Amino acid sequence: MSDESHVEARLAALGLTVPQVTVPLAAYIPAVRTGNLVYTSGQLPMINGALAATGKVGGAVSAEEAAELAKICALNAIAAVRSVIGDLDKVVRVVKVVGFVASAPDFTGHPSVVNGASNLLKEAFGDAGVHARSAVGVAALPLDSPVEVEMIVEVAD
Amino acid sequence: MSDESHVEARLAALGLTVPQVTVPLAAYIPAVRTGNLVYTSGQLPMINGALAATGKVGGAVSAEEAAELAKICALNAIAAVRSVIGDLDKVVRVVKVVGFVASAPDFTGHPSVVNGASNLLKEAFGDAGVHARSAVGVAALPLDSPVEVEMIVEVAD
Amino acid sequence: MSDESHVEARLAALGLTVPQVTVPLAAYIPAVRTGNLVYTSGQLPMINGALAATGKVGGAVSAEEAAELAKICALNAIAAVRSVIGDLDKVVRVVKVVGFVASAPDFTGHPSVVNGASNLLKEAFGDAGVHARSAVGVAALPLDSPVEVEMIVEVAD
Repeated sequence: MSDESHVEARLAALGLTVPQVTVPLAAYIPAVRTGNLVYTSGQLPMINGALAATGKVGGAVSAEEAAELAKICALNAIAAVRSVIGDLDKVVRVVKVVGFVASAPDFTGHPSVVNGASNLLKEAFGDAGVHARSAVGVAALPLDSPVEVEMIVEVAD
Repeated sequence: MSDESHVEARLAALGLTVPQVTVPLAAYIPAVRTGNLVYTSGQLPMINGALAATGKVGGAVSAEEAAELAKICALNAIAAVRSVIGDLDKVVRVVKVVGFVASAPDFTGHPSVVNGASNLLKEAFGDAGVHARSAVGVAALPLDSPVEVEMIVEVAD
Repeated sequence: MSDESHVEARLAALGLTVPQVTVPLAAYIPAVRTGNLVYTSGQLPMINGALAATGKVGGAVSAEEAAELAKICALNAIAAVRSVIGDLDKVVRVVKVVGFVASAPDFTGHPSVVNGASNLLKEAFGDAGVHARSAVGVAALPLDSPVEVEMIVEVAD
């Protein structure tokens, strides 16, 4: 516990653990730092290397389920950030979040889905977790994932 | 008038007013500044809190109508930037614009739609409004919006 | 040959040439530099001003063909970067890549498609070409392009 960041302690109080990152198989990595910014790769709702669900939101997956999946994506995005900065308490600000929602054609409730990610980030980082955001509905996502979340955070020197 | 930026004066000459931002209901905000960059949230064609139109481009919404909606999105993105920097004349450069177009399956005229945003930014900021851009067609957007526009601008110290 | 960057020499060894950029027709440009970052516009698989293919991936276009198209997009993104920095050896790091794949509804192999871009960037820039990445499936792309790739690179002072 003594090595744990305040961020991780706050998540632990919610019963959440920042996972280890899975190294992608291709020529890309979970996150890259440039200057004081860290850009994450798009994160899927993976738990222990397997997707927590598949299918389109508004079809096989409900908006409520999708919000929970977006929360898992955000947790994986936090893990991606940790993989390059080590100590999550170095995060000064979550700058931008983009949430991609694999949508049934008539689904328009994307904001409530991506709120699953936004709210988790607020819980993890407090006021520093409040970000700019885009939520969009896409045709399909890798491995038939219902949700994908990427983010940019500012970190201390 | 005396408090108005040159940017707003140029827009006023076109009959356009930078609106007040609507504060989002979830844990995100219209824009965030990090260093000299401001990232906006994805902006919908909202006028006084209501979508100016709904539906898919190439379906219920024509490309010409959608270009006009993209212009409203860009105006809202300018408002989002103003909400964090106050004076729009601090904008040094519009760096990047992404335009998401909710598309009927056979619609491929996304560039002309997003030109509605690009041209407005050029009119508002002059040469500093010329940006890098991505235009993509998506399955669906929040609240059945036909268009969503996000941008990154560089601002003076 | 003497004016050629090491990056271009590595690509030449693969039989690839960085093309000249086509200037877009609207109020945007192929890439913009802000500080030490260069943001490219979304790049289509254009060869000499014409799309190398059209159609949806998983439909008229196979995943293998699409990966080859993503490689062309990446080459055009390199050209876009060169248009603003001149010497490609100034690239310190490829920070982020987003690959948009125009997808048939049941197509979920987006990662292998975008690998076409990721692998090319690794070949061009070596370890500096390894980036964060998002791969998403979209409804449709400009001009019925099967793939679109944008990137952010960090450049030396």
